[in-house]
Amino acid sequence: MRLRNKPWAKPLIKAHEAMIMVTPEGMQGQWQDRFANHQPLFLEVGSGKGQFIIEMAKAHPEQNFIALELQEAAVGMILKKQIELELPNLQLILGDGANLTEYFAPGEISGVFLNFSDPWPKTRHEKRRLTYKDFLAQYQAIMTQEASLQFKTDNQGLFEYSLVSMNNYGMVFDFVALDLHNDARVSDNIETEYEQKFSAKGGRIYELVAHFKPTVD
Amino acid sequence: MRLRNKPWAKPLIKAHEAMIMVTPEGMQGQWQDRFANHQPLFLEVGSGKGQFIIEMAKAHPEQNFIALELQEAAVGMILKKQIELELPNLQLILGDGANLTEYFAPGEISGVFLNFSDPWPKTRHEKRRLTYKDFLAQYQAIMTQEASLQFKTDNQGLFEYSLVSMNNYGMVFDFVALDLHNDARVSDNIETEYEQKFSAKGGRIYELVAHFKPTVD
Repeated sequence: MRLRNKPWAKPLIKAHEAMIMVTPEGMQGQWQDRFANHQPLFLEVGSGKGQFIIEMAKAHPEQNFIALELQEAAVGMILKKQIELELPNLQLILGDGANLTEYFAPGEISGVFLNFSDPWPKTRHEKRRLTYKDFLAQYQAIMTQEASLQFKTDNQGLFEYSLVSMNNYGMVFDFVALDLHNDARVSDNIETEYEQKFSAKGGRIYELVAHFKPTVD
Repeated sequence: MRLRNKPWAKPLIKAHEAMIMVTPEGMQGQWQDRFANHQPLFLEVGSGKGQFIIEMAKAHPEQNFIALELQEAAVGMILKKQIELELPNLQLILGDGANLTEYFAPGEISGVFLNFSDPWPKTRHEKRRLTYKDFLAQYQAIMTQEASLQFKTDNQGLFEYSLVSMNNYGMVFDFVALDLHNDARVSDNIETEYEQKFSAKGGRIYELVAHFKPTVD
């Protein structure tokens, strides 16, 4: 979802360099130093207004989290919340999910979250979908061998596409939910802003958790 | 779905040996001789009352079809229809989907259909689900390398399970539909009796089409 431009965002970001980095190329392997504790690091690609990653950071103080977001207005809103909360295990990035290997070192990330990514329904925009094979290759490049990718969406077409794309890439499926909010197996789902609103209207949420096969060296 | 026993089924089957075989062990490699023409052979495992396979046989005279069904009462009902229709490209089997390699030779089958199989929802019955890995191994053993498996169900739990099972077996997904009857990509869906009734009540139908990776010799 595109947000209206927020004139306050740019100066706010500039004034809080300890909390947020802009297109942090060359930061590979150094992320742990920006957190209070060295502990497993999880990345959300496309954090929107940040409700999910903030709740995750609150619920899991034993893990570190990075919210990556392309829109200045959106990441500005996450930053506002973080200025208030000062969560020691949350860092923000204003940057592009297509450049992950320029931000992170191989094995630096212990898990990736994709929540309600833009479905890009037109076939000619397939390459922009965050479950397109080139993105999967980036996640694989920065994740540990034990790490998993958790993907949630309300978009039926994107979920169908992603099942095929992640299958054809060779990922191992750990969990599939075709109606996450009515799934007896799930008790700890943390919702995004969008997810709450969509689900309140009776819409179905889909989830796929999968991991990459260990690469043979 | 379990049908009531039909006392007429057994003698009817016995009287029509050119149309139906009972547990045809040792028939591997000989099926083409039971059809009017030698042409690609497709197998439905669990044909129920046979509407799907009969419509398929009518729609595709250039292909041969086998309806495999475990229940005598059900296969008896298919046989009744076939006695009337005398479709030259349809054969019936009263037999068990767990014994496919005793019925068919490697590469004898050009495609397998699974339609609204029993979901066996209890975990301890997992091995009975027709998308459990042991069944997948049987399909793989009798299918050509180009053949695909088409799986339809209305059962959400079975579809979730099958996505994971077929992916983790190493199958390649060709097509996923999470709402088949409202899918703009699909124009030639042939429905089972059950599918028609369930869908008329507004239920969702799921479909997965997948194939096995070529085995390296």
